[in-house]
Amino acid sequence: MACRICHSVLVTGSNRGIGLEIVRQLVDSPSGPVKIFASCRDPDGPRTEELQELAQKHQDVITVVQLVKNFSLDICSSASIKEALKLVENEVQEKGLNLIINNAGVNIPGSLADTEKSMMVDVYTSNVVGPMMVAKDFRALLCKAAAQFSHQTSMSCKRSAIINVSTLLSSITICPENFSLAPMYPYRVSKAALNMLTRCLAEDLKKDGILVMALHPGWVQTEMGGSEAPLTAAESVKGMLEVIANLTEKETGTLLDWKGNSIPW
Amino acid sequence: MACRICHSVLVTGSNRGIGLEIVRQLVDSPSGPVKIFASCRDPDGPRTEELQELAQKHQDVITVVQLVKNFSLDICSSASIKEALKLVENEVQEKGLNLIINNAGVNIPGSLADTEKSMMVDVYTSNVVGPMMVAKDFRALLCKAAAQFSHQTSMSCKRSAIINVSTLLSSITICPENFSLAPMYPYRVSKAALNMLTRCLAEDLKKDGILVMALHPGWVQTEMGGSEAPLTAAESVKGMLEVIANLTEKETGTLLDWKGNSIPW
Ligand SMILES: NC(=O)c1ccc[n+]([C@@H]2O[C@H](COP(=O)([O-])OP(=O)(O)OC[C@H]3O[C@@H](n4cnc5c(N)ncnc54)[C@H](OP(=O)(O)O)[C@@H]3O)[C@@H](O)[C@H]2O)c1
Ligand SMILES: NC(=O)c1ccc[n+]([C@@H]2O[C@H](COP(=O)([O-])OP(=O)(O)OC[C@H]3O[C@@H](n4cnc5c(N)ncnc54)[C@H](OP(=O)(O)O)[C@@H]3O)[C@@H](O)[C@H]2O)c1
Repeated sequence: MACRICHSVLVTGSNRGIGLEIVRQLVDSPSGPVKIFASCRDPDGPRTEELQELAQKHQDVITVVQLVKNFSLDICSSASIKEALKLVENEVQEKGLNLIINNAGVNIPGSLADTEKSMMVDVYTSNVVGPMMVAKDFRALLCKAAAQFSHQTSMSCKRSAIINVSTLLSSITICPENFSLAPMYPYRVSKAALNMLTRCLAEDLKKDGILVMALHPGWVQTEMGGSEAPLTAAESVKGMLEVIANLTEKETGTLLDWKGNSIPW
Repeated sequence: MACRICHSVLVTGSNRGIGLEIVRQLVDSPSGPVKIFASCRDPDGPRTEELQELAQKHQDVITVVQLVKNFSLDICSSASIKEALKLVENEVQEKGLNLIINNAGVNIPGSLADTEKSMMVDVYTSNVVGPMMVAKDFRALLCKAAAQFSHQTSMSCKRSAIINVSTLLSSITICPENFSLAPMYPYRVSKAALNMLTRCLAEDLKKDGILVMALHPGWVQTEMGGSEAPLTAAESVKGMLEVIANLTEKETGTLLDWKGNSIPW
């Protein structure tokens, strides 16, 4: 048997786009995880049919989890997270959870004139506060997984890790090069904030043996990326999973793209 | 007469701490502005007495403006901003407004375990959305000021500028060096977001001749900084005003400290 990428993984926003493709490639891979928790906000909604079909086909591996209730301040309603936590806990038991891929995210494109206060807050809540609350509430389960490898000090997604899906547009350094092509105030500002969250978590969770990094998927053909994007979700996710599988403690607290190239803050 | 730093300035959070000291030094300086709009959220509250006294002594220069109503999603209630805008507009007329110092800010220190969703959203609203809405609504007045200097392409605070008061703790690059001393998730994440906002605005408003940059005041003895801080507000603001007075187009889109040193993103 090939060496597994990890024993268990939770993927948020897994009902479509990049998240769905991550689940698909993981379940299709001989080195995929034993347990995939595919979370989405509306497991019974029309946009979750494809995921439900996939889960049906791989009942032993994929568990669909409702994690996030609605797009609003309740995005990570504590009740929803606590329930998801209990479900995952029940399945992984003493093994803990190895990997969380915070992929769910939203973009409300907006110029300065078009951006309202509520758009700023909604996008921040989805793209930053959501991943933070997931990290906070699942921390104990990640620690449990990390502790299984306590004989070693190295970090990896096989042991315990959080991957926050960021973007090239999060780079404050690069901003002047691409701002005029895509103003997107709410999105850019939230993703730079997500990078700081990533960096804080990396520092904070180092002592627990949990690796934390941010990953840019490239510009990808999804509802968010649009049809003119150069990459298919399959190409992007293939690269992302290769990067994820090869992460070591050197990469904790970094921002990389789907090819493994470093992006400046 | 000494060359004025600029004709008019708006300072937010000017009832205490660094903001109050900015107003004090500006009004005391022979090269200070003709018009200082000192904004605070509660002009009649007990914490605004010192500012009101100062304004009383310098009625020709200082106008106290209510800009921000309360700490909540209403922080920049559009009504409040629109009213403040009308007031400022009435006073500066065709000259426009030269300089905005977005100084108002809040820190709710919080470890991962202690940070609730609402803390993340409140701090973001105050530290990022507030400055953004101020920039959005006052943009036309800044443009008017910039247009007075249309014969030149250079930028300066004498012409037209926005200064966002950031912090060393906003630096994603430096985070690992100081994280354990001050976890402060909501604050760090919001100020990194403010840096991205600064960078976007700098790019966006370049064409209007408006300079935008972020400034770290140092660690300062205020209610936020605490008494163990090494700098008095007077020392910090003296440095900040010198930096501000000497800004050129080279500094638009940068993050500097109160001595003019560059801080990495
Ligand atoms: N596509 C690109 O070119 C690109 C480039 C850079 C970065 N990214 C990042 O990649 C990630 C995935 O993007 P994508 O292209 O796959 O986007 P997508 O096709 O629009 O899918 C977004 C996913 O996130 C979920 N989601 C959105 N807002 C949510 C909320 N408030 N609560 C819970 N779930 C929410 C959606 O669920 P529903 O179906 O319920 O709406 C959906 O599952 C995002 O973080 C995005 O920022 C994408
Ligand atoms: N002190 C430091 O060591 C330090 C270091 C780095 C950066 N900074 C930054 O410097 C700026 C000023 O800080 P400070 O030390 O002078 O802090 P401070 O003494 O606590 O004063 C904060 C000021 O901001 C106002 N404010 C806070 N939240 C607000 C809101 N939601 N709406 C409107 N006004 C609000 C306060 O008004 P009320 O009186 O109504 O509360 C007060 O005028 C902040 O942006 C801070 O992040 C300070």
